[in-house]
Amino acid sequence: MINLYKGNFIDTPTPGEFRVREESVAVVEEGKLISLESQVPREYASLPVRDLGLVIPSFIDLHVHAPQHMQMGAGLDLGLLDWLDNHTFPGETRFANEDYARELYPLFAKELLRQGSLRSVVYGTIHGKSTLILAEALEKAGLTAFVGKINMDQNAPDSLKEETEESLRESVDFCERMAAHERVRPILTPRFAPSCTEKLMKGLGELARKKDLPVQSHLAETRPEARWVSELFPKSRSYTHVYDDCGLLGPGSLMAHGIYLSDEEIELIREREATLVHCPSANINLSSGIMPLGRYLDGGVNPGLGSDVGAGHTLAMYRAVVQAVQVSKLLRVMEPEGNHRTIKLSEAFYLATMGNGRFFTGRGFEPCGAFEAGMSFDALAIDLELPKAVGMSPLNQLERFLYSGDDRHIKTRILAGREL
Amino acid sequence: MINLYKGNFIDTPTPGEFRVREESVAVVEEGKLISLESQVPREYASLPVRDLGLVIPSFIDLHVHAPQHMQMGAGLDLGLLDWLDNHTFPGETRFANEDYARELYPLFAKELLRQGSLRSVVYGTIHGKSTLILAEALEKAGLTAFVGKINMDQNAPDSLKEETEESLRESVDFCERMAAHERVRPILTPRFAPSCTEKLMKGLGELARKKDLPVQSHLAETRPEARWVSELFPKSRSYTHVYDDCGLLGPGSLMAHGIYLSDEEIELIREREATLVHCPSANINLSSGIMPLGRYLDGGVNPGLGSDVGAGHTLAMYRAVVQAVQVSKLLRVMEPEGNHRTIKLSEAFYLATMGNGRFFTGRGFEPCGAFEAGMSFDALAIDLELPKAVGMSPLNQLERFLYSGDDRHIKTRILAGREL
Repeated sequence: MINLYKGNFIDTPTPGEFRVREESVAVVEEGKLISLESQVPREYASLPVRDLGLVIPSFIDLHVHAPQHMQMGAGLDLGLLDWLDNHTFPGETRFANEDYARELYPLFAKELLRQGSLRSVVYGTIHGKSTLILAEALEKAGLTAFVGKINMDQNAPDSLKEETEESLRESVDFCERMAAHERVRPILTPRFAPSCTEKLMKGLGELARKKDLPVQSHLAETRPEARWVSELFPKSRSYTHVYDDCGLLGPGSLMAHGIYLSDEEIELIREREATLVHCPSANINLSSGIMPLGRYLDGGVNPGLGSDVGAGHTLAMYRAVVQAVQVSKLLRVMEPEGNHRTIKLSEAFYLATMGNGRFFTGRGFEPCGAFEAGMSFDALAIDLELPKAVGMSPLNQLERFLYSGDDRHIKTRILAGREL
Repeated sequence: MINLYKGNFIDTPTPGEFRVREESVAVVEEGKLISLESQVPREYASLPVRDLGLVIPSFIDLHVHAPQHMQMGAGLDLGLLDWLDNHTFPGETRFANEDYARELYPLFAKELLRQGSLRSVVYGTIHGKSTLILAEALEKAGLTAFVGKINMDQNAPDSLKEETEESLRESVDFCERMAAHERVRPILTPRFAPSCTEKLMKGLGELARKKDLPVQSHLAETRPEARWVSELFPKSRSYTHVYDDCGLLGPGSLMAHGIYLSDEEIELIREREATLVHCPSANINLSSGIMPLGRYLDGGVNPGLGSDVGAGHTLAMYRAVVQAVQVSKLLRVMEPEGNHRTIKLSEAFYLATMGNGRFFTGRGFEPCGAFEAGMSFDALAIDLELPKAVGMSPLNQLERFLYSGDDRHIKTRILAGREL
């Protein structure tokens, strides 16, 4: 079946600049973009054309904690450890109760949808059954996602600590049960090196290899954490090597943060083709520091972008786009000796769409993230409802939406050709 | 007339911490808070009690450019000068047309109201008549404000440059016509030293003294601008001294930004009791840097807080509160040798309410900014509509609102006892 959409299409097939195609017509067949034309092709002249106005690719969030959605914004005056102890861990413990998961996770899925994040990679908790409820909620909302049951078998509160073997068994079981879903897939999720024994991580690495599963974790978010890892894993050359030594670093690996990395670690990540997920909002809120994103981009590392709710305080990826630009400006001004460059808005937008989309491509999903022939037609229609007298270009309208708009300005949400 | 409101009242009479008074009753007479009681006083037992839920003081914005409201968010990849030339100046030029002002300024007033900024200090343009239309729009929306017609007689595009004498005459005329308003008052507004001759600024200084008028301007926002000022005004000891030498620095002066100041300048500002208005959003967006707010607070300078729309990208002062905390965290981490301290959320909230309120007190307005006996009853009722199962304390709810809420969560807006 063919669907036609007209509008001003803006995307970033490359990071360097926005591509603006005004007054164009998208020809979509079975959820895929066939072509973007300057007018309705003659063979489809009899078909109806839907006017979307300003159209952009829908957003993709590569790092978000579903159980932390409800604590978003609370307690952020605390440092990382106090924040975990007072807000995050007690909050996650409550998901032992499946009824609680059944009440809260649909609200998380609804908010992702509302904010136009139609694809995401999501952390649950250690609780397999509750995390399956999360996966169900996402699928029910029509969203595409990877969902992970967390593993922790050390340095965690008793209520969230697993036995090593049990943790591995639960992960196997979780991944098997996830086969019931079509557009929500499993991802292995060792929380971060400090809360996982080497045995657990090696077991998960083995599972990733055997079942060809992707992996997500946290890496070098703060200096004290990096020092702690070097004490906990003295045999590994670095924090990054801990994951590599356990078979957890490869093209299917998403490593969040990566602020404090040596050149050797950056090179290892580049070689392994792992993705470093930038989470600017959380990095500010927890006083972690600023990822040198420009250096990573220019050095050939795969970077991604994430909301990192609840340390990040909004699920809106359009705001993460702005935050990535903002922290890069501050890094350049505050650390002039580092020769950092500013991230352009188009580069950050690229990450939130086309860049993050690469992680989905070939992992059970079609290519996505821009309006290119053959890609999944994932789109948001934006209307700022500005007075006509203002007369703003489509590109300035997009800039204004990213900085100052909100979910009320997203008028239509389309994933793989299907309106949600 | 007595009005009774019950709820969980949170405010910051002092910056150090939030004061939470749960399940309390506010007794309000003629727009002023008489007292906050633990229950309805016996003599008022027969009166109705309005339940507001979570109640906070309404917000006050000490620095905002009304004509830039519609350009908010656009073109922020540009540096300050290109941004002014490509967006701000062309945008402001359009307000020569009073019909344009009549169409757009009511939308600005509506958005201030929507975001709970019930008091503000606002820049118009050089156009006296359009700026009177702005004042009218604010008064019509029921808001309290100071409004300034901008003065510029050098280093401005031709379309926005005034003759010195004409500029002074227009200011006198503007201030006289503003007498028609009760709750919107005039403020003298030399844009910033580079765009004003000494003669103009001395004339405005004289006018401020004669008519007891407050003054607003910009100070030391970026390093290149500070250098430029030292070239333009070689007779003055510093940027701050330029204003002081022209009689523009006193208790009624609001100076926006103040990022790059010498110890001598800071001391002068402290002595003159002028207010330095922190605008974190704009300072990030224009790569200006980070104001050392902690140092100013601890050193006895009066600091204020502003949205600085359109270089700032939101009129929501609750977000400026969060941004002030965020940049202070980054300043501490990025400049460890500076021994900067983090700004607590309560301190930033204090600035946006009680701190900013001091500027209104005695300048034609009653004290405001907290729930203290004798203060104007200015209040917002907040409801996050969280599921009951989450069970969040009133203080955590306020934190979540500041970080992650939006205008939809502001259910009631009360200014001087009057619901808007």
